[in-house]
Amino acid sequence: MAARGRFITFEGGEGAGKSTQIGRLCERLESLGIEVVQVREPGGTALGEEMRRILADTKGDSPTDRAEALLFLAARAQLVEKKLLPALERGAWVVSDRFSDSTIAYQGYGRGLDVEALERMNAFACAGLRPDVTLFLDLPRDVAVSRMRAREIAAGGGPDRIESAGDEFHARVAEGFRRMAAAEPGRFATIDASGGEEAVWEAIWKRLKPLT
Amino acid sequence: MAARGRFITFEGGEGAGKSTQIGRLCERLESLGIEVVQVREPGGTALGEEMRRILADTKGDSPTDRAEALLFLAARAQLVEKKLLPALERGAWVVSDRFSDSTIAYQGYGRGLDVEALERMNAFACAGLRPDVTLFLDLPRDVAVSRMRAREIAAGGGPDRIESAGDEFHARVAEGFRRMAAAEPGRFATIDASGGEEAVWEAIWKRLKPLT
Repeated sequence: MAARGRFITFEGGEGAGKSTQIGRLCERLESLGIEVVQVREPGGTALGEEMRRILADTKGDSPTDRAEALLFLAARAQLVEKKLLPALERGAWVVSDRFSDSTIAYQGYGRGLDVEALERMNAFACAGLRPDVTLFLDLPRDVAVSRMRAREIAAGGGPDRIESAGDEFHARVAEGFRRMAAAEPGRFATIDASGGEEAVWEAIWKRLKPLT
Repeated sequence: MAARGRFITFEGGEGAGKSTQIGRLCERLESLGIEVVQVREPGGTALGEEMRRILADTKGDSPTDRAEALLFLAARAQLVEKKLLPALERGAWVVSDRFSDSTIAYQGYGRGLDVEALERMNAFACAGLRPDVTLFLDLPRDVAVSRMRAREIAAGGGPDRIESAGDEFHARVAEGFRRMAAAEPGRFATIDASGGEEAVWEAIWKRLKPLT
């Protein structure tokens, strides 16, 4: 029987370079002959992608803060049981763009919902699954904003629901991530995301290589 | 300022006659000049109706037990904040076909999820709102099944996802409702639903009339 795979999550605000680094990590792992399952939250299952569509819809019946948190949790429950646990059990690595810490940072610290209640609901949704390593790509807000503006101009589109929330919201979210990182230094690796792509990648790989 | 309205929920398995009795109650209240907001769970909001559609879809990415519970809770959170609290605050009565007790009975007792965890999540989703009176329409399973068969034959359709679960599941659900009713005799009124429509209605109105 294969050893259980590793579960790696990426956290951090928009513009921190998560997608690029996740792409590099999956390529590197595959080049080492490791099976990789790459997912994003909310999403990764048909149900999760429906939740993603509902959460991104700013025109319809916009979810309340509590409904929003519960929709993210429903998508997570589906993802964990249908996709992540089976992958980890057969020895694959799972790399997720956001996971349970995003709920605590965005819905808890950001929107002001009860953090302890959210932690308990996370445990329920994840059926006990916790990431082995969480890479928090930390980026000063002003750098993130200028990166996102450049991206929007290039794409010709507008910001989505969460991206369009204000600076105070993002400051609270960042504070949430920093507190969680400080509380769990064994699991969290805080990566300075203001450097170039190469420097960020080196820092990530340095943390993960010993696990391969 | 108007006094806060009353919040009445109906619980019980399929075939117990909830819809008929809810219709009679709403008519009676309106004839007394009381504003009534009638809702069903999951549903009552655009988001809730989307959750209802997803939960009833037996062909797609069928939700896991945990995801199912969280989808019901998301629909409930939306319903409470957007519709129920404003209605109750302006003095309307709210009559709901199912509410938080269904989560405990079906997902807790029925599917075997942690009842305490579900109770805490209910409190989160409801932002503290509790029914003033819960009418539990109690019906022996064999009577319910023969009523449902007659209804299916009349409608020419098949049973939905929850209705199609087995007898053991329904026995656990009924046991859950009976335990909750015994634990909260002040809020729960257990109504013997095996009698005729008129007898059931008399029992319901006897319990609710003093609140008008």
